[in-house]
Amino acid sequence: MDLMKKSLEMHEHFGGKMEIRAKVPVQDKYDLSLAYSPGVAAPCLAIEQNPSTVYDYTMKGNLVAVITDGTAVLGLGDIGPEAALPVMEGKALLLKRFANVDAVPVCLNTKNVDEIVNIVKAISPTYGAINLEDISAPRCFEIEDRLRAECSIPVFHDDQHGTAIVVGAGLINAVKLVKKDVAKLKVVINGAGAAGIAILRILIQMGYTNVVMCDTKGIIYEGRPEGMNPVKEQVANLSNPDQLRGTLDDALIGADVFIGVSAANILTEKHIKSMAIDPIVFALANPDPEITPENAKKWGVKIIGTGRSDHANQVNNMLAFPGIFRGALDVRATDINESMKLAAVEAIASLVTDEELNEDFIIPSSMDERVAGVVAKAVGSAAIESGVSELFQQEDFINTSVAI
Amino acid sequence: MDLMKKSLEMHEHFGGKMEIRAKVPVQDKYDLSLAYSPGVAAPCLAIEQNPSTVYDYTMKGNLVAVITDGTAVLGLGDIGPEAALPVMEGKALLLKRFANVDAVPVCLNTKNVDEIVNIVKAISPTYGAINLEDISAPRCFEIEDRLRAECSIPVFHDDQHGTAIVVGAGLINAVKLVKKDVAKLKVVINGAGAAGIAILRILIQMGYTNVVMCDTKGIIYEGRPEGMNPVKEQVANLSNPDQLRGTLDDALIGADVFIGVSAANILTEKHIKSMAIDPIVFALANPDPEITPENAKKWGVKIIGTGRSDHANQVNNMLAFPGIFRGALDVRATDINESMKLAAVEAIASLVTDEELNEDFIIPSSMDERVAGVVAKAVGSAAIESGVSELFQQEDFINTSVAI
Repeated sequence: MDLMKKSLEMHEHFGGKMEIRAKVPVQDKYDLSLAYSPGVAAPCLAIEQNPSTVYDYTMKGNLVAVITDGTAVLGLGDIGPEAALPVMEGKALLLKRFANVDAVPVCLNTKNVDEIVNIVKAISPTYGAINLEDISAPRCFEIEDRLRAECSIPVFHDDQHGTAIVVGAGLINAVKLVKKDVAKLKVVINGAGAAGIAILRILIQMGYTNVVMCDTKGIIYEGRPEGMNPVKEQVANLSNPDQLRGTLDDALIGADVFIGVSAANILTEKHIKSMAIDPIVFALANPDPEITPENAKKWGVKIIGTGRSDHANQVNNMLAFPGIFRGALDVRATDINESMKLAAVEAIASLVTDEELNEDFIIPSSMDERVAGVVAKAVGSAAIESGVSELFQQEDFINTSVAI
Repeated sequence: MDLMKKSLEMHEHFGGKMEIRAKVPVQDKYDLSLAYSPGVAAPCLAIEQNPSTVYDYTMKGNLVAVITDGTAVLGLGDIGPEAALPVMEGKALLLKRFANVDAVPVCLNTKNVDEIVNIVKAISPTYGAINLEDISAPRCFEIEDRLRAECSIPVFHDDQHGTAIVVGAGLINAVKLVKKDVAKLKVVINGAGAAGIAILRILIQMGYTNVVMCDTKGIIYEGRPEGMNPVKEQVANLSNPDQLRGTLDDALIGADVFIGVSAANILTEKHIKSMAIDPIVFALANPDPEITPENAKKWGVKIIGTGRSDHANQVNNMLAFPGIFRGALDVRATDINESMKLAAVEAIASLVTDEELNEDFIIPSSMDERVAGVVAKAVGSAAIESGVSELFQQEDFINTSVAI
């Protein structure tokens, strides 16, 4: 594939994608005496006396660590920390490009949950926020939960929440188009990894009541004898109110929405025909979706979204994470909580106006320069309202400008 | 002090000193498809198949982590990881400015030696080399020794070796001026912390045979009943061949060289008068040296060096570490070993020509743009010769250009 060769050449030509640059001049000994010895003692002492000034005098307040253990990289699986580095640099690139966030990769050569939690806690003084990336399920859930509880800075696992937020935004607009009632919709999610489970959780917060989740063993239900773990027990508890059992085929009967975070080409004409009228399909397997947009349309799907940039309606977490980190950093949030995530969902959906909205345009383009700023504003406001901003107590943030 | 106020203002104005920047353009979806999904899979897979290509396709090969636990920051002591961050950013600034090395701070909120070793090992896949900084003695010795043994990338504790290398370089030129024989010189080092002990070690490798070391309990000797630890037992074994006992006063009698890495204003006229003819004094306590250059000269010191930029003969580890990391990275060294350190000593000394050499000019200026390149070349060559370069087997490196 030519794109792969081009990418390899580009990475080699530049020697990776990111570099560290100085913001301050060093032309003479006086500059040195301010930036380094002896002047640097001044910010050191100021921070020692008043720890929150570390946000004023250092890069911490705009610095995100993009942390992985290399266990679930793209669709490539457990390729290790070194091989994961190009993706982490890519994430840093997008954070800088779309939201002016400084981000650095941290690739860990341990897969042990306790070790990962302890390492991230230990290195956290350097950063304003933590982005967990490409860590395999179910380990990613425990790692994120423990870090959110134990770190004073925001911790966000993009593979879960970034994807879930953009799916949520796309669904708002798709459901608006087909004029159905959220509370009555039946949604089937295929794939119970990090993204699938986060999608379930955000849909429930958005008012969806009938979500059915499938994994490789079929429909997940309470008391299923095989393929369960504590996370899937939670899934069973949150989903499948009708206690369905069986396969994906059974789940899809009468479903209004299919969301696939699973494998290529598993949706057949028979599946689509068994769904409710005006079916919505988000086929997010990468690079090859669960169903091609061509087949989906031919077989009667009303609205089809994929993860690909070469089709309409690209469900791309690039729409979420740059603005989310920008917003969290701007208000010095201590967490990225559920109300901030829901604010991001609404903000992304709002960027498609009623006039623009159509079957092939339910989500803004990933290159839309407005998105990160609008998301940041919404996320920052939600942080303030939910009491996790250390900078703003009130709505005065609304009138400040977001530094992009 | 006005400089302190200016420094604080500068740090606040820029929001710290370093930022992360993209090296590649992202103007459209095609750029994105090369730098991120799906093209980024190409370098990921290439690295998985051939791990050494991580140096070709990522930022790793030019990226240094500047790691501290905040326990021995400047002369300020144990001020913690957040308050240490301005110094780590300063180090990153100098690495970039003088040697085009990308460096990022990593401030750890643990002081436990085992934890620090395990954390640094775990995060090491991301970096091309590790700079340990401002970690208190004697913990710093064990941390560096273990990391050098267990990491596949170079690990260098600048507070030890950077200072020692520049002292060694200054002494080469100072001794040349006073026309004495290295093997017959008596050297007294006052202060048995990280820098003092590293100076002892490098002097012994440079052929010095009579070095006497003092700490707060006086002269260190084998079997001293108090104030000893395993590191000081080694010091006693390496130094003080005449088995002197007593105080600094006793040590200084007949000494040719005094090197202070201790405290302000401890050297008196009586001390200087008790030394040998043409005494050399490196009074490196910061910001106030063991003796002022004015008093030193008045009382008969032939050559005086300090750590200060506002006096002649500034012994500044800026002369060493940028070029050392540049050289180690350029040849993809697996270690920064003793022969590389000695090569740096010689390289720095060589930048003062016989014509230029005088009592007030034994060391190049810290702003001398030539230094890092010359040091890098020497260090890279020494790495190749000593068999720790992964890129070069032979002397072909000598003919390559150093990327500065």
